[in-house]
Amino acid sequence: MSAAIHPLAPLSASEIVTGSKLIKELYPAETDIHFKAITLAEPAKQEAIPFLNAEHNGKPLPTIHRRAFVCYYIRNTNKLHEAVANLSLKRVESNVRLGPNVHSSADGEEIIAVEKVALADEGVKAEIRKLHLPAGTVVICDPWIYGSNGIDDDNRMYQCFLYMRDPFNSSEADSNHYALPLAISPVVDTVTMRVSRIDHLPTGADNTVKPTVPYKLKPANEYIPEAQVLRTDLKPLNVVQPDGASFKVSKQETSSVIDWQKWRFRVGFNQREGMVLYDVRYDDRSLFYRLSLSDMNIPYADPRTPFNRKAAFDLGDAGAGIMANNLKLGCDCLGSIYYLNAVLSDDKGGTINMDNVVCIHEQDAGIGWKHTNYRTGRAVVVRNRELVLQSIITVANYEYILAFIFNQAGEITYEVRATGILSTQPLDDGVEVPWGTVVHPGVLAAHHQHIFSLRLDPALDGYDNRLVYDEAHAMAPSDFNPLSVGYYTKETVVEKSGGYDVDVDKNQIFKIQNAAVKNPVNGKPVAYKIMAPPFQKMLALKESFHYKRAEFADRSIYVTQYRDGELYAGGKYTNQSRGGAGVRAWADRKDNVKDTDIVVFVQFGINHIPRIEDFPVMPCEILKVHLKPVNFFTKNPALDVPPSVQSFNKSDLLSEAHHQATSTLKVDEDSSCCSSKL
Amino acid sequence: MSAAIHPLAPLSASEIVTGSKLIKELYPAETDIHFKAITLAEPAKQEAIPFLNAEHNGKPLPTIHRRAFVCYYIRNTNKLHEAVANLSLKRVESNVRLGPNVHSSADGEEIIAVEKVALADEGVKAEIRKLHLPAGTVVICDPWIYGSNGIDDDNRMYQCFLYMRDPFNSSEADSNHYALPLAISPVVDTVTMRVSRIDHLPTGADNTVKPTVPYKLKPANEYIPEAQVLRTDLKPLNVVQPDGASFKVSKQETSSVIDWQKWRFRVGFNQREGMVLYDVRYDDRSLFYRLSLSDMNIPYADPRTPFNRKAAFDLGDAGAGIMANNLKLGCDCLGSIYYLNAVLSDDKGGTINMDNVVCIHEQDAGIGWKHTNYRTGRAVVVRNRELVLQSIITVANYEYILAFIFNQAGEITYEVRATGILSTQPLDDGVEVPWGTVVHPGVLAAHHQHIFSLRLDPALDGYDNRLVYDEAHAMAPSDFNPLSVGYYTKETVVEKSGGYDVDVDKNQIFKIQNAAVKNPVNGKPVAYKIMAPPFQKMLALKESFHYKRAEFADRSIYVTQYRDGELYAGGKYTNQSRGGAGVRAWADRKDNVKDTDIVVFVQFGINHIPRIEDFPVMPCEILKVHLKPVNFFTKNPALDVPPSVQSFNKSDLLSEAHHQATSTLKVDEDSSCCSSKL
Repeated sequence: MSAAIHPLAPLSASEIVTGSKLIKELYPAETDIHFKAITLAEPAKQEAIPFLNAEHNGKPLPTIHRRAFVCYYIRNTNKLHEAVANLSLKRVESNVRLGPNVHSSADGEEIIAVEKVALADEGVKAEIRKLHLPAGTVVICDPWIYGSNGIDDDNRMYQCFLYMRDPFNSSEADSNHYALPLAISPVVDTVTMRVSRIDHLPTGADNTVKPTVPYKLKPANEYIPEAQVLRTDLKPLNVVQPDGASFKVSKQETSSVIDWQKWRFRVGFNQREGMVLYDVRYDDRSLFYRLSLSDMNIPYADPRTPFNRKAAFDLGDAGAGIMANNLKLGCDCLGSIYYLNAVLSDDKGGTINMDNVVCIHEQDAGIGWKHTNYRTGRAVVVRNRELVLQSIITVANYEYILAFIFNQAGEITYEVRATGILSTQPLDDGVEVPWGTVVHPGVLAAHHQHIFSLRLDPALDGYDNRLVYDEAHAMAPSDFNPLSVGYYTKETVVEKSGGYDVDVDKNQIFKIQNAAVKNPVNGKPVAYKIMAPPFQKMLALKESFHYKRAEFADRSIYVTQYRDGELYAGGKYTNQSRGGAGVRAWADRKDNVKDTDIVVFVQFGINHIPRIEDFPVMPCEILKVHLKPVNFFTKNPALDVPPSVQSFNKSDLLSEAHHQATSTLKVDEDSSCCSSKL
Repeated sequence: MSAAIHPLAPLSASEIVTGSKLIKELYPAETDIHFKAITLAEPAKQEAIPFLNAEHNGKPLPTIHRRAFVCYYIRNTNKLHEAVANLSLKRVESNVRLGPNVHSSADGEEIIAVEKVALADEGVKAEIRKLHLPAGTVVICDPWIYGSNGIDDDNRMYQCFLYMRDPFNSSEADSNHYALPLAISPVVDTVTMRVSRIDHLPTGADNTVKPTVPYKLKPANEYIPEAQVLRTDLKPLNVVQPDGASFKVSKQETSSVIDWQKWRFRVGFNQREGMVLYDVRYDDRSLFYRLSLSDMNIPYADPRTPFNRKAAFDLGDAGAGIMANNLKLGCDCLGSIYYLNAVLSDDKGGTINMDNVVCIHEQDAGIGWKHTNYRTGRAVVVRNRELVLQSIITVANYEYILAFIFNQAGEITYEVRATGILSTQPLDDGVEVPWGTVVHPGVLAAHHQHIFSLRLDPALDGYDNRLVYDEAHAMAPSDFNPLSVGYYTKETVVEKSGGYDVDVDKNQIFKIQNAAVKNPVNGKPVAYKIMAPPFQKMLALKESFHYKRAEFADRSIYVTQYRDGELYAGGKYTNQSRGGAGVRAWADRKDNVKDTDIVVFVQFGINHIPRIEDFPVMPCEILKVHLKPVNFFTKNPALDVPPSVQSFNKSDLLSEAHHQATSTLKVDEDSSCCSSKL
C-alpha cells in the first residue's frame, strides 16, 4: 500500500506490477496472461469527495484503498476478463470473464505481431508475388480494427491493409506507404494468430473485386523533409520567458498539481483517455471534478465491404494514453516547457515508461481585453496569457493533438487538432466516386467523420448541479414592441437524462448551473456555458452497427446522472462492439438530472471530405470547445491582469518611419472637452 | 496627377487636399463645407485588371486616372452630396445631391460638438439638476446614431445617452461612466445643432417613463489598472525574432505590398472599411481581387423607445478606418512589429494622420502538421507560422480587433475579437427583464447581436469564378450499401445571385471555384472553401426597420454578380437608412453568377447575451472565418515548411527530471520489424 499516493493519481510502476502479480496468482504459473490494461480503478466519488474536502480544508485525510482495474486475456484465447485488484489489501476483489461479443482493445505488441503474421503468410505472399513488384520493394501492413457487421465476426480479428514503400527508394523506412496502397487485405484472427481470410479490395466505382494482377507503378508522395525542396525564407521565432514560467508543478508521486493564475488542478494520465484533469478549481472555487476526452469515433463513408466496417474508436480500440507521442523539446511546443511522464502497463503485466507524454507551457493568445477612452485617448489593453497542457497521439496513420487550455478570464478550452495521414485505398485510373477524393494518382481517401465526446463531470461550487439551455426568440409585435425589433431569452431546465441537440437558429446555449448558489450582484445562478462547434451527426443509418456502437455520435449533448465507472461514451469495450453499453443507454434511464450529481458529454466533430491538400499529411484541422463562466464571478475575472506594456513585453519595432506616441497616454482632464463638470 | 501612385492605393495627403479643393471651388468662397469622407474612388475593375496583368507580367503599365470619392454636407444643412473628383484631370466629374432620407455617417468632430451641445443645453442641465448629484460630479454624454423608425426621423439626429463618472473620483477622466448610466436622453438635431427633445428612458420592466428624481448613489466599477489589485505572479513572455521577421513590406506611396511565405498582396486603408487587401496571390497564382470587412450591424433587443432604434452600423455610421486605434508597441501586438500609417480626411477637407493603424507581425500558431511513423518512431512536425495584419477600432463603448491572418498552408483567416464595454442603461433595483442582464447594481446591458459581413471578391486563377456548395448525405440501404453506413457528397452550383443559408446538418460547405481550371492530379475544379461559424440571424422581424436596413443580416451567404461600387452590404449610406440599397437588393437582380465575375458576402456573428463577466470590459469573444484551398494545389502547400527543430526554435526545458530522447530520431531500417522486404 502506498499511503502517499493521492486517490486520483495514476498507478505507480510498483502498483502496476502488484496488480499484474495479483492476477497472475489466480492462475497456474504456466498460464500466459495477455494484459490489455492495468490502470487506476478510481475510488467511488462518494469516497473521493470527503477526501478532497479534507484536503482543501487542511483536515486529516481519510484512507482510501488503492485499486487497479485489470483487463486481460488468457493469451491466444478469447477468454477476456476484467478484474479489480485491491492494492492496499493485496487481494483481487473481483474477476469476471466477459463475453461473448465483448473484446478488448488492440495493443502495440499485438499490432506488431499481427503485421508479422500477415506478411509471413504464404497466401499473402503468393498474392503479393502476383503484383510483380520490383525487386527489393518493401510491403507494409497496417492492421485495422475489424469493426462489426454481425456476420461471422464473433472472433476478435484485424483487417490488414497493405501498402508499399516507394519501390525506387525501398531503404527509406519513413517512405509514405499510404501513397501506394495495394488491393490485398488479409484478415488475422487474434486467437489463432493466423490469416483466416484474404480479402480483395474493390478498386472501381462499384463493389466488384478483381483478382490480383501486376501492379502498374505509381509515383511516390513523401512527407519527409529530405524529399522536399524546403522553404528557405522562414526566420526563427523564439518564445522566451526570462524570469521562468508563471505556473508551478507540484509532483506528487504519479500525478501533478498545477497552479497557474488562480487555477489549480490535478493531472492524471491513463492508458485509454491519456490526460485526465481532476478537481479543477479557480480562485479556490470548485468547477469540475473530472475532465477528459471520453471517446471518439471515425466512421468511413465507403459502403463497400470491407470498408463498411471501418469505424475506429481510437480511445477504446487503441488508447489515447498508450498511443501518446514522446514529445520533443523545440518541436511540439514552443517556449518554456515542462514535460510530464507517465507509466503504463505492457502486455506482460510489466510497465512501460511513457516519457514526455504531456507538455505544459504558457502561450500568448493575443489581446484579452481592451478599451480606449476616445475622449482621453487612453487605452487599457490586457493580453490573454494561456496555459496549455498538450498531448499528441498517433493512431496508425492519423494524429490528434489534444490540449486543455486555461486562460485568465476563468475559461477552459479543449482543443483538438486533427492531422496525420489520410487512410487510403487503391482506386483504378479514371474512376471517380462520391464517397472519397483522389488525393494522389491511384489513391482514394474516403470521406469520414471524426466525432469526439468530451466528458465534463461538473462541480460548480459543489456537486449538485443542473443543465439548462437558453434560447433567444423574437418578440411578437405589440404596443410594447412597436418596432418589431425586441427579443428575449428563455431558460429551460433539463429535468431528465437524455440526448440533446443545439439549435443555432434559436441561439441555444447549454449551461451547467448550480441553482443553489446565486450571483451576489444579479441574483442569477452561477453557471458555466458550453460553446462547442455545431457538427453533422453520424450519417450512418440508425439500423447500422456504426450508429448503434457510437452511442454519442447522434447528439450534441448527453446528460446523465452520475454513476461510478460511466466514463466512456461509447461503452467500456468498443472493439467489435454491438452497442447498448454507452451513454445513449445510460441517458435512457431517464434519471433525474436536476440539482444532483450530473455528467455532461459534449460532442463535436468534422465530416472530413478530403482535399488533395490533406495529402500526404494534412494541415491541422482545429476544433475548440469552450467552457466560459456565466454569472459565476461578479465581474470580468481578467480585470486584475496587469495591463500590457512594452517594458514587460519587449517587442521589437521593425518599421523605421513609425511614429509611436509618447508614453504619456493619460491626457490631462482639462484637455478633455467632452465632459460637463457640475 | 501622381503617376507613381498605384490605382488601388489610398489617396495621398495631397490628393485629399486636391479633392476637397476641387469641391470647394464649386461653391462660393464663404460656403462652409462639412466633409464626411474624401477617399479613393477605386477604378472600374475592367480598368484595373489590365493594369494588374501588366504589373504581374512586367509590361508597360496603362494609365488610370486617380479619382476621389467625396461625400459632404453644406454645413448645418441637410444638403448631402456625393461627388467624384478626377484628381488626374483636376476636375469634378460628378456631384449629386442625395436624399431625402439619405444621411452620411458621424464624424469625430461632429460627435464632440454634439456632446457639447447636449451638455450645454439648459433643458438638459435642468434635468441633471433634478438628480441632486454630489458637487463636482462629471456627467458624460455618449452620442448614439439615432436609428430609424419612420416617425419624425427625416432629419439626421443623435440620440445621446448620459452617464457620470464615479462621483467620489470625479477627476478621473478614465472613470468607467458606463457603470453609472442616467435616464436622461437628449436628442440633438445635426442641422440646428440644438437639443430638439429630451427623452426619459424607461428604467423598469415596462415602458413607463418617470420624471427625473434624485439619484440614489451606486458603486463605481472601474477597469483602469490603478483601481484594481493586480495579479503579481505573471511572468514575462517575449517573442523574439533574432534574424528579423520573415515578411517584407514594400512601401509604395500610400499602400504597401507584403511578401511572406509565397503570399503577396497589397494593403490599403480607407475611412469606412479600414484595412483592405487587394490582389491577393499565393505562389504567383491569383486568389482574391479584394478582401475587406464590408459591414456590421449591432441590433439591440430592448423593444422600448428609444432603445428600439439602437442598431449601429459601425462601418457605415462611423467608419472602421477613422475609428482605428493608434497601436502601441508592446501592447497590441507581441514580437517584431511593423506598423502601417494612413492618411484620412477631416471634416474641413484637410488630412488626419492616422499613425500605426495596422500592425503586422508573425506568430506561432502551434503545430501545423505532424506525423509519427510508429514503426520507426520518427516524427516529422512542422509548426504553423502565421502572418497577422491587425487593426483595432473603438466605436464609443465597444472595441473590435480585426485581423487578416495568413498561414503556410494557403489558408486565410479573418478574425474578429469583440471587446470593450457593453452599452448600458439604468435599471430600477430589483427589476429583471428577459432582454438584458444586470451587470452591475442598477445597470442593465441589453442583449444585442453583432452581425458581420465579410466581402470576398474572388479571382481564383482568373476572374470568372462560381459559387458551389457541397452536401453530405447518407446513402439508402441497398446491396451496394449493405451495412447502411455509406454516405456521399453532392455538389450544387449556385446559378443566380441570392442569399443562402448554411445547413450544418447537411454539412453544407460553400466553395468558390474556377470551373475552367482543373486540378492536374484529380481533375477537380480548383476551389477555396468558406468556413464561417453558423450564427443566429437577425431576430428583428421582417417588417422592422432593423431587418430592412441590415440587408445582409438574414443570410449566411450572399452572392452577386460583380458591379463596380457595390462594396457595403448594408448599402452606401447606413445612417438612418430605410433599406433597399444593399446586398439583398443587389442579389434580388437574380443575375447569373456562374462562371463570371462574382462577389461573395460571408456573414457571421454572435448573439451577445451579456454575462456579468463581460463587465466592466468584456473578455474577447473571438470569431473566425477561414478560407481554405480545396483541390487548388496538388498536395499540402505546407509540405515544404522546414520541420520544427530545437536548433531553430530554442525552447527552454523546465522539467528537471525530463528524459528527452536522443537526437537520432531515425531508426535504422533493420531494427524496424514490421515490413516485408521482397
